[in-house]
Amino acid sequence: MNNALAMTEQGLHGDPIAPVILGVTGILFFAVIGRFLARRFGQPTVLGELFMGILLGNAAWYLEVDLITVLREGPRVFELVSASLSGISVHEVATAIFGADKGNEIVRIISGPHGGEVMQVAQTVDVFSRYGVIFLLFVVGLETEISEMRRVGADSIRVAVLGVIVPFAFGFAAAGLLMPELSLNSMLFVAATLGATSVGITANVLVELGRNRSVEGHIILGAAICDDVLGLIILAVVSGIIVSGSVDLLHIGLVVFMSALFVSGAAVFGPKIVQFSAAIMGRLDIVEAKMFTSYLFVMVLAWIANLAGLATIVGAFAAGVVLSDSYFKEYEKSRKNFVSIRELIMPLEVVLVPIFFILMGIQVKLESFLSVPVLFVAGGLLIAAILGKLASGLGARRQVDRLVIGIGMIPRGEVGLVFAAIGRALDVIDDALFSAIVLMVMVTTLISPPLLKAAINRRGSRMAPD
Amino acid sequence: MNNALAMTEQGLHGDPIAPVILGVTGILFFAVIGRFLARRFGQPTVLGELFMGILLGNAAWYLEVDLITVLREGPRVFELVSASLSGISVHEVATAIFGADKGNEIVRIISGPHGGEVMQVAQTVDVFSRYGVIFLLFVVGLETEISEMRRVGADSIRVAVLGVIVPFAFGFAAAGLLMPELSLNSMLFVAATLGATSVGITANVLVELGRNRSVEGHIILGAAICDDVLGLIILAVVSGIIVSGSVDLLHIGLVVFMSALFVSGAAVFGPKIVQFSAAIMGRLDIVEAKMFTSYLFVMVLAWIANLAGLATIVGAFAAGVVLSDSYFKEYEKSRKNFVSIRELIMPLEVVLVPIFFILMGIQVKLESFLSVPVLFVAGGLLIAAILGKLASGLGARRQVDRLVIGIGMIPRGEVGLVFAAIGRALDVIDDALFSAIVLMVMVTTLISPPLLKAAINRRGSRMAPD
Repeated sequence: MNNALAMTEQGLHGDPIAPVILGVTGILFFAVIGRFLARRFGQPTVLGELFMGILLGNAAWYLEVDLITVLREGPRVFELVSASLSGISVHEVATAIFGADKGNEIVRIISGPHGGEVMQVAQTVDVFSRYGVIFLLFVVGLETEISEMRRVGADSIRVAVLGVIVPFAFGFAAAGLLMPELSLNSMLFVAATLGATSVGITANVLVELGRNRSVEGHIILGAAICDDVLGLIILAVVSGIIVSGSVDLLHIGLVVFMSALFVSGAAVFGPKIVQFSAAIMGRLDIVEAKMFTSYLFVMVLAWIANLAGLATIVGAFAAGVVLSDSYFKEYEKSRKNFVSIRELIMPLEVVLVPIFFILMGIQVKLESFLSVPVLFVAGGLLIAAILGKLASGLGARRQVDRLVIGIGMIPRGEVGLVFAAIGRALDVIDDALFSAIVLMVMVTTLISPPLLKAAINRRGSRMAPD
Repeated sequence: MNNALAMTEQGLHGDPIAPVILGVTGILFFAVIGRFLARRFGQPTVLGELFMGILLGNAAWYLEVDLITVLREGPRVFELVSASLSGISVHEVATAIFGADKGNEIVRIISGPHGGEVMQVAQTVDVFSRYGVIFLLFVVGLETEISEMRRVGADSIRVAVLGVIVPFAFGFAAAGLLMPELSLNSMLFVAATLGATSVGITANVLVELGRNRSVEGHIILGAAICDDVLGLIILAVVSGIIVSGSVDLLHIGLVVFMSALFVSGAAVFGPKIVQFSAAIMGRLDIVEAKMFTSYLFVMVLAWIANLAGLATIVGAFAAGVVLSDSYFKEYEKSRKNFVSIRELIMPLEVVLVPIFFILMGIQVKLESFLSVPVLFVAGGLLIAAILGKLASGLGARRQVDRLVIGIGMIPRGEVGLVFAAIGRALDVIDDALFSAIVLMVMVTTLISPPLLKAAINRRGSRMAPD
């Protein structure tokens, strides 16, 4: 009983949110430094944040900073809280999940005097990063207009399909050859990760070189939009297979059916729900009405997607595609100030998304690269990722610069990371594989801009005009 | 070991964020309905959100909804997680905190199959609501310009000082008379809660009646700004006393000294730090630069305030006072779009603050009013709160309408709630007292607008022109 009273006494000193503020703000601070450095060296911000995360994760792990040690282990560590609350021995669960050595280390931290605080901070960072991913995909969806998708040409569609299928095949083959001990589930997931395209980076380079209005530019941007959709479908199918536990045609069919049901449901009922919500929110001011409608809509679709056995981000993406400022036109007429949904979500995105990227960096275990086989795997994945996307350029017609298109499709950026994080949560991607995928994402993102510039400058005059 | 493996298996199905999304969004959904109803009936939004919270809390408690049952107990319930992780018996701690009956109920929930999920959702709701309070006080601070405070006249200062001291004295007396068994700490805290003023509600009514530019209007608004500052000082002193555990002049002196040190530190170094941050963030875009600077500054000051033994919200308020868009003027010249810090924080505030209000409502235990003594206490506090603020009108010069000023100072609104929440976290305000304070806040907020209208219309012509 003395212990119990000591616990309640402890709670009296200071605001319980203070450690959370310190932890979350500290991590965001490092992310901002990373973002700043990336801009300083003309690199995409995601690279700077991942880099700082890797630095922080590996330095702090070496220096035995408890919070980082817990964060490095990813979401699995939170199962210990559930276990402990159900009265199961934390030690047993930790050993089952992490093995004896690491399990002991983690049990030592969370049963220590600041264990509760460390876990609360880690859970908050984890929750913030997950909300970050949801808003990230929501924004990607917002930027994907259905009308624009209709305008996407046959070239883009061919490039997109090749850009998903070829890296998938190469990735599957590379995983099978280099890691024959891998389960089929893991191989499928690795392959799916290679199919993603993050075209924001390419778009930036094209804009910078004044080539975004070239035919190549249009084909790449169109293909990237299709890729987002194709990638999410593949993600849905692969995760469906993994969760159901068997590669069985009935299950694949079920997942495809659920995906189709979800997307068509969102497409048919979504606009009606948003319209209804925009109409009844007329009593609130425009910022409240837009913010509440967007927030509730995104979250409800994310949750329904999860219920349907799809990833929450599929729901967030669908919400972004469906939502648009036009639903609020009617009642913006009477007000002076216009604020777009994009602008309203931006502050949330700016604070939460860097937390996701830096957390992904923190979870990269550089020590796993000390083994030669892992280096081979990382190299193999990287080659498969690059060659696969280069090949996608062949989907475009002959008259255009296929090399430029292929290079433009290389960067994996955010979406590849999101897939890797999901694979980790599904326990099909282990620490070494996760680290290899993050490095693949970083390298493809890093090399594309200079390669693209070189390719364009080499035969810039050959690029077809708009 | 079987149990341990079963736990890890359980983690495989679905995205772990899905229950969090469902819980948080569900709660926000009810808050939005409350806000909507408040607008519908021309009431302040905070009333609607509190009302929905009370409804939800008492209905769901009756219906035994686990999440709400946990949320109703407030932050103390999270100590069970820490206890459980340190290997202390959850059952013992729960009994020590909540007594045998309620303790058993809570242990049943958190050790059940969804215990981990329920606690994670509850902790997320709790963290979000705390971030909400920080942003709320930050915005209050943003709206408090130092230049404006200099312009505040002697009338406002006298009204503000009376408006804090008289309700404090009345509250202390009422608590002492009605609850002689209360500790001195609790009496001090209850008294401090009565001193708060939330003038937003009065300001709205004044604007609506076109009287915000009258002398009375100016005095009230000026007094409210002073009240925020005085209230936070009193809060700092009272919490300092409570945390130190003794009413001892040395400690009061120390708290006053720390407050002075903190405020002068924030006033002297704050602008320099913000200037520095705004300058080095030049490479980021304006939204990022403003958002990161504001966010990091608020959080760092909140944390430092806690370190100095003050409340985190004192730091958030100070950050708001120091920050202003003028620091970013230099480099907004070169950009097209201007976005104010206020507009950038608004989306965060719009999503998080309603969660705080509805959570406060959820924690109001109507069953505590089934006892006659508690009803007496609630009535006594309410009378002390109203008479105390009415008396503050006497601080204004004779020529103005002192009744209008007194009535204008009555609403407690947000700030009173924030104080009550802190008192609860410090364990000096129990369930019944907390419920009484929330009802006092609601009633004062509810009666002020009609009273103010009646007083103004009765002798509207007597009000002094600007």
